[in-house]
This record gives sequence, structure tokens and C-alpha cells, in this order.
Amino acid sequence: MTAPAPLSPILYEAIARRALEEDLGRGGDLTTDLVVPATARLVARLVARTNGRIAGLPVAATVFRMLDGAIAIDTVAGDGRDVAAGDVLATVEGPARPILTAERCALNFLGHLSGIASATRDVVAAVAGHPARIVCTRKTTPGLRALEKYAVRVGGGANHRFGLDDAVLIKDNHRALAGGIGPAVARARDGIGHLVKIEVEVDTLADLGEALDANVDAVLLDNMPLDTLAEAVALAKGRVITEASGTVTASSAAAIAATGVDLISVGWITHSAPAMDVALDVETP
Amino acid sequence: MTAPAPLSPILYEAIARRALEEDLGRGGDLTTDLVVPATARLVARLVARTNGRIAGLPVAATVFRMLDGAIAIDTVAGDGRDVAAGDVLATVEGPARPILTAERCALNFLGHLSGIASATRDVVAAVAGHPARIVCTRKTTPGLRALEKYAVRVGGGANHRFGLDDAVLIKDNHRALAGGIGPAVARARDGIGHLVKIEVEVDTLADLGEALDANVDAVLLDNMPLDTLAEAVALAKGRVITEASGTVTASSAAAIAATGVDLISVGWITHSAPAMDVALDVETP
Amino acid sequence: MTAPAPLSPILYEAIARRALEEDLGRGGDLTTDLVVPATARLVARLVARTNGRIAGLPVAATVFRMLDGAIAIDTVAGDGRDVAAGDVLATVEGPARPILTAERCALNFLGHLSGIASATRDVVAAVAGHPARIVCTRKTTPGLRALEKYAVRVGGGANHRFGLDDAVLIKDNHRALAGGIGPAVARARDGIGHLVKIEVEVDTLADLGEALDANVDAVLLDNMPLDTLAEAVALAKGRVITEASGTVTASSAAAIAATGVDLISVGWITHSAPAMDVALDVETP
Amino acid sequence: MTAPAPLSPILYEAIARRALEEDLGRGGDLTTDLVVPATARLVARLVARTNGRIAGLPVAATVFRMLDGAIAIDTVAGDGRDVAAGDVLATVEGPARPILTAERCALNFLGHLSGIASATRDVVAAVAGHPARIVCTRKTTPGLRALEKYAVRVGGGANHRFGLDDAVLIKDNHRALAGGIGPAVARARDGIGHLVKIEVEVDTLADLGEALDANVDAVLLDNMPLDTLAEAVALAKGRVITEASGTVTASSAAAIAATGVDLISVGWITHSAPAMDVALDVETP
Amino acid sequence: MTAPAPLSPILYEAIARRALEEDLGRGGDLTTDLVVPATARLVARLVARTNGRIAGLPVAATVFRMLDGAIAIDTVAGDGRDVAAGDVLATVEGPARPILTAERCALNFLGHLSGIASATRDVVAAVAGHPARIVCTRKTTPGLRALEKYAVRVGGGANHRFGLDDAVLIKDNHRALAGGIGPAVARARDGIGHLVKIEVEVDTLADLGEALDANVDAVLLDNMPLDTLAEAVALAKGRVITEASGTVTASSAAAIAATGVDLISVGWITHSAPAMDVALDVETP
Amino acid sequence: MTAPAPLSPILYEAIARRALEEDLGRGGDLTTDLVVPATARLVARLVARTNGRIAGLPVAATVFRMLDGAIAIDTVAGDGRDVAAGDVLATVEGPARPILTAERCALNFLGHLSGIASATRDVVAAVAGHPARIVCTRKTTPGLRALEKYAVRVGGGANHRFGLDDAVLIKDNHRALAGGIGPAVARARDGIGHLVKIEVEVDTLADLGEALDANVDAVLLDNMPLDTLAEAVALAKGRVITEASGTVTASSAAAIAATGVDLISVGWITHSAPAMDVALDVETP
Repeated sequence: MTAPAPLSPILYEAIARRALEEDLGRGGDLTTDLVVPATARLVARLVARTNGRIAGLPVAATVFRMLDGAIAIDTVAGDGRDVAAGDVLATVEGPARPILTAERCALNFLGHLSGIASATRDVVAAVAGHPARIVCTRKTTPGLRALEKYAVRVGGGANHRFGLDDAVLIKDNHRALAGGIGPAVARARDGIGHLVKIEVEVDTLADLGEALDANVDAVLLDNMPLDTLAEAVALAKGRVITEASGTVTASSAAAIAATGVDLISVGWITHSAPAMDVALDVETP
Repeated sequence: MTAPAPLSPILYEAIARRALEEDLGRGGDLTTDLVVPATARLVARLVARTNGRIAGLPVAATVFRMLDGAIAIDTVAGDGRDVAAGDVLATVEGPARPILTAERCALNFLGHLSGIASATRDVVAAVAGHPARIVCTRKTTPGLRALEKYAVRVGGGANHRFGLDDAVLIKDNHRALAGGIGPAVARARDGIGHLVKIEVEVDTLADLGEALDANVDAVLLDNMPLDTLAEAVALAKGRVITEASGTVTASSAAAIAATGVDLISVGWITHSAPAMDVALDVETP
Repeated sequence: MTAPAPLSPILYEAIARRALEEDLGRGGDLTTDLVVPATARLVARLVARTNGRIAGLPVAATVFRMLDGAIAIDTVAGDGRDVAAGDVLATVEGPARPILTAERCALNFLGHLSGIASATRDVVAAVAGHPARIVCTRKTTPGLRALEKYAVRVGGGANHRFGLDDAVLIKDNHRALAGGIGPAVARARDGIGHLVKIEVEVDTLADLGEALDANVDAVLLDNMPLDTLAEAVALAKGRVITEASGTVTASSAAAIAATGVDLISVGWITHSAPAMDVALDVETP
Repeated sequence: MTAPAPLSPILYEAIARRALEEDLGRGGDLTTDLVVPATARLVARLVARTNGRIAGLPVAATVFRMLDGAIAIDTVAGDGRDVAAGDVLATVEGPARPILTAERCALNFLGHLSGIASATRDVVAAVAGHPARIVCTRKTTPGLRALEKYAVRVGGGANHRFGLDDAVLIKDNHRALAGGIGPAVARARDGIGHLVKIEVEVDTLADLGEALDANVDAVLLDNMPLDTLAEAVALAKGRVITEASGTVTASSAAAIAATGVDLISVGWITHSAPAMDVALDVETP
Repeated sequence: MTAPAPLSPILYEAIARRALEEDLGRGGDLTTDLVVPATARLVARLVARTNGRIAGLPVAATVFRMLDGAIAIDTVAGDGRDVAAGDVLATVEGPARPILTAERCALNFLGHLSGIASATRDVVAAVAGHPARIVCTRKTTPGLRALEKYAVRVGGGANHRFGLDDAVLIKDNHRALAGGIGPAVARARDGIGHLVKIEVEVDTLADLGEALDANVDAVLLDNMPLDTLAEAVALAKGRVITEASGTVTASSAAAIAATGVDLISVGWITHSAPAMDVALDVETP
Repeated sequence: MTAPAPLSPILYEAIARRALEEDLGRGGDLTTDLVVPATARLVARLVARTNGRIAGLPVAATVFRMLDGAIAIDTVAGDGRDVAAGDVLATVEGPARPILTAERCALNFLGHLSGIASATRDVVAAVAGHPARIVCTRKTTPGLRALEKYAVRVGGGANHRFGLDDAVLIKDNHRALAGGIGPAVARARDGIGHLVKIEVEVDTLADLGEALDANVDAVLLDNMPLDTLAEAVALAKGRVITEASGTVTASSAAAIAATGVDLISVGWITHSAPAMDVALDVETP
């Protein structure tokens, strides 16, 4: 697949600055400032320590350059590339002090986002051959939604809602408070814009029937046993988009996908994906 | 152990607000605003779906109340408590709309921080009986350092540096650029305040010798084989604080701790701990 | 119609604070601070000077209370109410100084948003009896999008996209750069989430044919003469949502609506609606 | 007249960034990112669709370049120039994606500010031949005061107070609470700095007399019938600056100016001026 | 004299929050959190350690309450009061931890602003019996202008410009670049609003003559020897406001004031006033 | 001594921007914008008016360039240099308007920070020949801690804690609430990280004994008479770091240092150092 379009820096410059500010505190990098000669220069390489898919290299580059515009980053394997342990992602060259000072901050972005992209890639691979797309949720890390949604795209997944305001997703509690699926959908349809779709969470086939009757755009088949899920997909096929959710692992994904469901939403790829191990190797000065 | 002091809200109010802003976007919660009657009220419970140690409940409560001051949260099992699946952490009561709107945002904090506390707790438990303390690193999620460091404390771990400005940690690159451990330490000692300690990363016993000669406060024994580590600890014991780092899992931690090392630093408890599954169960309205 | 759900204060507290900061500058309200006795109290009424529909009263109330929590606002005719010149919207009571200091800032929000709601209401009224809904555009005032979109809802209009990330709208330039409507739609469909709709701007019936072939969700019939528009609507009816745009005034709207088009988008209701005249009448102290 | 000095970017960079952030949301420009090839380049022209006076071109240019520094803007007719429909204001050249993404945001500034400049220009023209200057008020759009005050200057108008802290303006309520014009002025004079002037709002000739006795710098003759206004101006002439306010339209302005009043303040040029129609015409790629 | 109106919290809440954030860093108050029992409560008194005039008590109170709303502050001697060493300014009561954590931050505001008020008071006292008022300059501490200008008012001084945009002050460089005082004043008068005054800095009597000819509102007699100053004041008296500047100490101020000058501007009262020593005395728990 | 490492701009860009924003207000530099021709260019010199040590030149340069990137600053005598009245620190060259507009703001930083550096230098000089180092406190100006701590380093002083979270300092109130020095230290030691030191404030020799028994890292000998201080230092020497605090002036410092104390902390160098007089001399255009 091709990598998605890079994210506009407008969407991450503020968090990049905050990340530097929280690491430099009120005194800056004591160690580097005291120990490293002011005139020292470095050539270093961003290197993968494990297999994974890269996401966040432009963010890391922004962190380095935000600290010091004299740092040059030359990308070797950019966002969307699958790399193996030892692969070089980029070279970083410039004054030694700011490179060392920015290192951890840049790696924290790169490791976190590549971890999400890699996890997504693996779940996507697990459903290869099936029509199902892997989608993320709103279970993201506070302050990082734009970046994490982007990392999911880099991993080959698709994005569910970016937030509460770009689609209607009627869950159990909404339905109960509205007096049923029908009334809930009717109220939503009455108020939304013409480019907003409606999805309804259903737990049973009876619910599904109500949702189909209500003419929704998509149904979220939540935590159904595989056979019920298959039945639900069969019922809904061709009428609405079907999404399965629940506990989805790389191993269980294939079976879920085999039901023919259109989408499988996976929370852990954003909230629990382990960071990818990426390091900065400095060439001996 | 007793829970650490709660974190001052000054340290998380800004990120709590940003989290709500990124979820509400420009239109707010379309679904809830359209589907749920304005006058509806709810009683709900924050419930653990898995075993774990709770961290971040005051942050979650801040999120709810920041959205609507009329929401009341009554804590049952607060930060530092070990809970099992099904345990109730708190009750949330008030107007239905803002409770449902804030739900995901509050849970994202609670799940993320409880995940870190739980992971820390488990590694701490793995070294029980040994003198070693588990410490975190600067491998934290951008924007969340204060909260994640706090979650580590809740998990029974100790904090390493909060940032680049509260201690000196001389790593390989610093040393190489300074011309050796001795000169690096000398330069650092000359410039630091009297309450700042110096730690040096060493990879070999020869390095360790240099560090001991330089009279540092602590040594970071990086990625040493277990037997080398044991030898290093034996050499350093009583002279400097010893810290082991490298790939530390719950299973490998005990063996590392058995060397008698004072501290074991673990990166993954902040950058890769899976989120704890916490949910908001609404009582049928 | 009923008023839409109130906007969460999270979406306007920051702009309310900035508005106060820009009016108070570095010295605060020189006149009031010097001339009005510190202990004076006031009862005042927010009063409509013209006919219109109210929007933004909660924002105005937030401005007053943000300056001084001791100010009490008692709403008489809230958001969504149609008022005539002389109608009282709310009473404001409390210490005289902060009421006078916050007055202009509160009125600026209230007048601006009520102006938008009133304009929208008037265009909506002009198409009464036709199926067409009035929708706004992204031609909003910088920094005020959430509030202006809300004011449109209060006016009885519907919202088009909140921003660039909640739907796909393929305009002429996109199409040209992608090599035609078909390829453009195909590329978009390949990358979007399942709750994202695709709308295409078309200028001719030929374009419309291409868009229908591409199976889009909606077509934006841009600036078509009335008869072409009618023909286009007839072609598209039942297959896609149809939206007319161009120069729409209260007087031209009815003719456009008579074509049976589903939506009429109107830029001027957000970018050029005159402010509604609302004043604060102080009862003689 | 010559254009006023350009506004320092320090005064609008923050609002320019917020405008981009509110349009890009959390996902960026879905359409452009998916549909437009990454390597495509554009040449486009900012073009007036109607007659008007340009204001805000440097702000629009800042928006484009803030999104992507590789966009080049070449000004043809800058701020303060009167243009006709079809006139080219600037050419914009660079990578296609960020040009299309920033387009609406840049136009929103340009149209809004040019609308204010054009409205101001027209009222200024209506009083040509009279000594009266047209001045704006504090009835500005929240968050945009610096820019709107600048647009008024571009339109040939003068600025009244920038905020509550740069001059004293004693209105009815202040006066009532202070116990009359005399005491109010005395209290103000006692506390203000030596470069702060005092203006008093007066509704009647009796009030005017009191204000003249109090030796104020300026009088705001509020909503007076034309003949009363003329009488007031005659009384005050040569003693204080006279300002007329009330409902001022381009057509009524001349009659007001004919009274010889020094200033006519007009609220609607900032709060209700229709946006000028400016568009970005892309040359066929 | 009476104290000036209190400053609106809108003008200092942001800096109060930043001050707390910079002191609490990423870990909060280690000492207090670890050492002081969570349930401990305190009664403490803010006490003057030296003679001085109090300014900033509401800011200090805001700092305490921003950290913890449960802290109660009871003012004994508020802003504008002259106190002697040992005098109690306020009592502070509540939970021990946040009181101790906020202490330094609150005192930093209080000491700094009271230092400015006290210094101002002393210079004001030195010119008692003369008509001269003491005014401050724009030589303020970055980020604290609103607060420092307020402290000057509390000290009995008057404020010069709040910033670059509330009056015209033509200095040597402006004049030189404009081609003389006359042209400079003419250009300024042509562009300013009707409530903006013009002051010109003059170094010689010849300059003064030019300024008087140009009909300015005020002249800044810069660094003139006393006899020249006296001559200048005699020339300008009754025609323009006269302001003396230069090196002004409490001892030299009287001689300057004796020239009859209207205003004496003093930079050091804001940029170099020593902080007043104020402490928090905790009653033995 | 050599100058300390320059501070990363990340640590002061935000306050530099706020300083410009507070000076430019909502209208910018009225005088310069109206009086100085748009095309005028300047060459100017930053010149010391008094003897002192320079600190903050990079901050001043940032202020100039933040306002206009076309301003070139060429440093002659940078941070850490001792200069005499008349010495040139830097030349500033570029468009006249922004140079004049930024002048005061840049000088406010430079004068404030150089004042701190100069005061520190003088106290440091006063203890020359003794082992004592001069250290600053947390008595800093709100919002400027990072810069002021840096200025102390430039002055040859060392930094005490940057904030509440980088070391433990047990003061009288902590001790009283914890039930004595021993319990307080024990509680702190139990909770801190391994790189955090513990200092205890002691007022008497008995206290000192307790602190030594508790094995702390440093003792703060607060306000002791000289002979008691000498006795305390003799007792503590070789066991813990000793710090003297109290009323320290350049003249009293030597006597304190003669006790052999390791550190003398001085609050006034940050909260009460007079600003150094630095000016911008414009060469006749």
C-alpha cells in the first residue's frame, strides 16, 4: 500500500513544543550543556532496533529542528516503510548539543507512533484476503488524537470518528435514554448535516433488525459471539456497513473477518500498542 | 504500600482541557446532543473490567466536572487501590448529556494511567524480597510526563529524572564527546548545583572503574549480561547507587534484582504498558 | 422548531477569555474603575433593539461570570427564541463595576451570534413549504467557527462540514488535479473512513452525470441557472443528495427551493449577517 | 490617501494559527490529501469578485506560509488598494496541496477585513468635503479587534479606543452612578495618566453644557436629532472635539457631517460589514 | 490617598497559573507531598518583615486558591495600606499541603508588587508639596506590565503609557527619521485617533520651542540640567504638560519637582525596586 | 570563568512573544508606524550605560528577530562578558520601524537579566578566596525563573532548586508537621528518587545535630549569628554540604564565607537586583 498523505505540521507543532518544554523544564539539558563542548558536531542515525512500520518521522524531524534550526535530517526510510532491526531511518547531522538534547523527545514520538502503525499493520495483515478493514476508535492518548489517527492510517488501517462531532454513533446508553433505536435514530436524523452518517451499536439480532428498519448507515456489532456475528453480517450485508468490535487480537481477527464483516474496530492499536524501539546511534565523533 | 500524594490539579488541568477540546471538536457531541433528552439524569459507575491498580481517578473526575460542574463523583476505590474485574471505582451522577460526552475522555486518562500503575505494580511484585526498586525513565508519552511519573509512583515504583534539568546522567555520547568519563564528570561537577546528583552510564567493568574513580553518585549498568552485572554490583556496592537497565520484563526482573542491584529502570512501564480496561456502566435510566 | 442543544462551554470558554483580555488590555476599564463607586450595585436588562432570533445568551452569561462570579444572570428569552424590539432577554444583577466592564464584550458575542441566527431564520422562512434545508459553509469568522455553526443551528439551518476533516468535498480544483471526477472519487473512497461521505461540486449536467456514475453521496450544484438547476435536481433526485449554492438571498431562495433541491448552502449567513442590535439597559440606580 | 502602516505579525500570528487549527481539525484536509497528487504544483490568483478596498492580504499570506513555507505569494494590489471585480490581488504559487488546504482560511481573513475596509471607505466617501472623520467603535468581533481596527484604518477611517484602557469614555450609566457629569469627570481626571483623554456621552444640550463646564476633551453626541446635533456642534465648536453617534448609514452620514461635527462613529463597519467576495482562481494545472 | 480600584483577575490569572506551573514543574512539591501528613491543617499569617506599602494581596490570594479552593484568605491590611515590620496582612487557613506549596509563589508576587508600590510611595512622598506627579515608564518586567502598572498606582504614582498603542511619544530617533519635530508631529496627528495625545521628547530649549510650535500635548524634558529644566518648565507652563525624566532618586526628586514640572517619570520604580520582604508565618500546628 | 551554555530558545520564546504582545497591545507602535518612513533603515548599537556583566543578549536578539526576521544582530560582547559604561554589546541593523518597536522590549530583558548577572558577579567577587559558592533561591520573578536562574549562572553563581520538584528542602514548617527532623527525613527518603538530594533547614546547633544524625545531604543554616554559623560549619564539615542563608549583602558575604561554609544563598540577586542600564544608540540616519 502507499503511505497516506503526511500530516500538516499545524496539527502537531503545538504538542512538539510542549514535549520539548516538559523535557527541558526550567534548566535545560544539564548534562549536555555542561559536558559536551559547544563546538562539537555530530552525525547520527535513527535506527530501528526491531521490525516495524515507521510513523512519525516528520514529527521527530520537527522536534529536532524546533530545538535548533541548524540540525539537518535526511530521511532514508520514511513514514509507511516497513523496516527490520538495524535499518537506518534517517541521518541527523549538526551541532552535537541540540541533537543530544532533542533525542529522547524525538524518539518518544517516533517510537509511540511507529508502535501504533506496526500494531495496526499486523492486525491488517491478519485479515488479509478478507474484505474487512481495520479501524481505530476514540480510545486514544489524551492530546495525541490527530497523530495517533494518522499512525493508524500509516499502518494500513482506516479511521473511525476523529471525535464526537463528525458522525453519529448511537450506543446503548443513548438508545435507552431516547426510548429505543427507532426514536434515537429519528432524533439524530432530524438534526444532523447531510454529510453526517449514523451508526448504531447493536448487541443482538433483534437490535439489528430495529437498526435496519431505521435505515441507518452502519451498525456496530458489539461483542457478539462469532456465530451470531456471522448471522448478523448475513442479515445486514448489502443494506448497511457492518462493523465488529470487542476483544480483537491479531489471532482472533481472522476469524472475525471470515464472517464477511466490513470493518473491525480495534481499541488497543491506539491505547495499548507497545512502542517500537527506535534509537539514535551516534557515529563516533 | 500507601498511595503517593495526589498530584496537584495545576499539573493536569491544561491537558484535561485539551483532551476535551480534541474530542468535542467544533460541533460537540452530535449523538448525545441530538438523541438524549436535555433533562435526562444518570447514575453510573466506573467499573474495572480487569484486575489492576487504579491511577488517575482524580484526573477523570476533573474531566467530568470541567465539562459540567453539576456532575458529582463519589470515589469508592481511589488511586493506589488494587481492584479486580467488576470492582466499582466510583459512582458518577448528574445530567445525562455531559456524563456521556465526557465518558471516553475520562476513561482514556483512567485507563492509560491505571495501565502504567498496574504494569509497575507487577514488576515491583516480581522483585519482592530483593532490595531493588523499580524506576521509570524519560521514555514517556509526549505531554503526559507529570501524569505518567505519578502513575509509576502509584504503582509502587520510584521516579528517575523528571526531565533533563533535575540530575546529570552522562551517557555514552556525552562521554565520548567530553573525552572520557573522568573529564565528563569533572565538567559536570564544576557546573551543577549542590543538590544535583551525577549518574554515569557504564557498559563494562572498566568503565565502572573509571566511574568509581570519578566519585559519581550513581552508575547505570546498561545492558550487562547477568554475571557481569553481578560483578559490577559487587564492585560498586557501598560506594555508589547501582542501577540496571536493559530489556526488563516481569520474568527477567527477579534475576536482575538477585544481583543486589539498587535500582532497575524499566522503559516499557511508561511507553508500552497496555491500558487497563475501565468502563462506565450506566444504570438503566 | 425547538432550539438545538446548548453548546458545551468547553467550546467557547477560551474565546470568551480572549475577548475579555483584548478589551481590558493592560489597564482594565479605566472609566468604570475611576468613576463608579466600588460598592455600587446594578440591576440591568439585556434587551433586543430589533426583531430577531436570539443566539449566544449562554456565551454572554459566561463572559459576565468569567469577569466576576458574583454577577447573576436570569434568562427570560433564551437561545432560539424569536424576539421583537423591546423584548427583555435576561436580567443581569450584581456589582456595578464588572457588569459595566463586561457589557460590550458580552454584547459583541450576543449581537454577532443572534445576527447569524436571525439571518438564517429568515432564509429558512423564505423556503418554507419546500423540502430544502438551509446549510452554512466554511466561510466563517476566524476563531468563531464552533459558535457560528451553532448560531446557524439556532436559526433553523443545518451545518455543512465543521472543517476540512469531517467529509470529502471535491471541488473543481481537486477534480482537475486528479484527472476527472471519476478518478477523484475513487481516490477519496479508497482512503476515507466508513462514516465519511463524499460530495462533488458540479457545474454542468455532464459533470453531474459523471458524479452520479461515481456513486457519490451528494452533489453540489454550483451557481447553475435556475432551469439547469431544476434539470439537475430532476436527474439526481432519489439517487444522491442535491445541494445548490451560489448567490442566495432571502428573495432568490424560494425560487431555488422550488426546484426541489435538498439543500441550499448560503455563505453570507455566517460571513455577512449584520449583527443584531442588543443592548444592556441599566435601571436607574 | 495612503495606506496605514502594515500591522505587525505579532498581532495576528496567534489568530492565524487558531484559524488553521479550527479548519484542519484532527484529520487535516481529507479531500486534498486523498485526491490531489503529492507532487502537484499550482499557480493561482487571488481575485476580487466585487469592487472593494483590500485589507488583510499580509494576513492571508501569513496563513498560506504558516501552513507551508514553500508557498510563494506575490502581491499585485495590496492593502489599501481599491479594486474592481476581476482585479488580481496576488499570485500564489507552490505545492498544490497546502495551497488548496489554506485557501478558505486565507480567504476568510481577506474577505472579512476587506469588507470592513470597503464599508469604511464608502462611509468616508459619503462625508467627503466635510471635516468629519469616520471612526469605529468597540463593537468588534471577539478575537479580531486588532485586525478589525486595522481594517478601519485601511478604509480611511480612524480608530476610537482600542479597548477599555486607553481612554476614558463616560457613558450614561457611569454618570448616573457617579452622581452627575461633573463628579464623574472629576473622579476620572484625578486618576488618569497625563496622556489619557476624557470623553463624555451627552444626550441633551443641558448635558453638553455640563460637559463643557467640566472641561472634557471630547463629547459624544449620542443619537441626537439632526437639528439638536447641529446646535450642539455649534456650542461645542472650538472648545472640545465633537463626535456624533447613532444610526449612521452611508446615506445619513452626509447630513450628519454637514453639521460640522468632528467625528462620526459607526458601529456597523466592524460588526455588520458584509464580507468582500474574494476568490482563489487556480490556473488550469 | 485611597487605593486604586482592584485589578480584574482576568489580567493576572494567566500569569498566576504560569507561576505555579513553573514552580511545581513535573513532580509537584516533593518535600511537602512526602513529609507533611495529608490531613494536616494550618493557620498562617502573611506578615510584613519590613515597612512598606502592600500591593498584590488579591494576586497572592488567587495563587493560593488556584492551587486549592479550600484555602481561605482573610485580609487584614490590603492593597494600598502602609504597614510596618511585623504587621499582619492576612491570615491563611486550610489544608497544610497546598498552603506550603503555594507559599513561595504567592510571596513572589506580593513581594515584587509591594516593592514597586513602596518605592513609588517613597518617591511620591519626596515630592510632596510640589505639584509634580510621579509616573512610571515602559521599563517593566516582561509579562508583568499590567500588574506592575497597577502597583505604581497603589504606590500613589500615575501610569504613563501602558504600551506602544495608547499614546504617541516621539523620541529622538523618531524625530530624526521624520526630518524634525514639526514633520514628525504632523505625521502623527494625521493618523491618530481623537483620544490619543502626542508627547515629544526634547533635549534642549530649542527643541522645546519647536515642540510648542507644533502644538503637542506634552513634552518630555529628557535629562536636562536642573536650571535648564526650570527654564523649560517656565517656557512651557500653561501651554503643554511637562514631564521630566532622567536619573531620578528619592533625593533628587524634590529638586526636580521644585522646578514646577508637572510629571516626573521614574524607570527604576518598576525595573529596579527591591522586593518588599513579606513572609508566611505558620502558627505552631 | 567561562560563560555557561546558552539557554535553549525553547525556554524563552513564549515569554519573548508575550512581552512583545503586551507592549504592542491591539494597535501596535502608533508612534513609529505613523512617524517613521516605511523604507527607513537603521544601524544601531546596544551599549552599556554602566559597568556590569551581560546576560540575555540572545533573548534580546530573539525579540528583535521575532518582530521582524530582517533585523540582523551582530554580537560584540555576549553573555558572560564584563563591560564598562560605553562598551558596545552588539550592533542591530535593518528596517527602522521594527527595530524601534522592539527596542524597549529587548532592553527590558537585557537590563533585567544583566542586572541579576551583575549583582551575582559582585557577591561572587566578595567571597573570592573562600570556598563558598553563591547560590540563588526560588525567590524569582513570576514567569522568568528559567531566565533568572540562567542569569545567576552567567554571574558566576550556582543554581539552587529550579522548583519544588527537583530536590527536597525540609523547612521549619515541614519539620513541625512531620514531628521532627528525623521523621521528616525518613519520610522523604522513603519516597524520593535516587538522584534527589535532601537538605534540611536548621536554626540551632541542636537541630544541626539531628540533621547530621539523619544523614541528610545538605543543611541550610538559616540566619545564624556568625559565630554560631562558624561552629555549625565546623561540626558539619566533611559530613554534609553546608549552606548559609539570611541577610547577605556584598559586604557581609565575605565574613559569612570566612566561616568556611560551602554555599551562601542570596535571595536578592534574583528578586531585588537593580536592572543594568543598557541602551540602544541609533547612529544618525
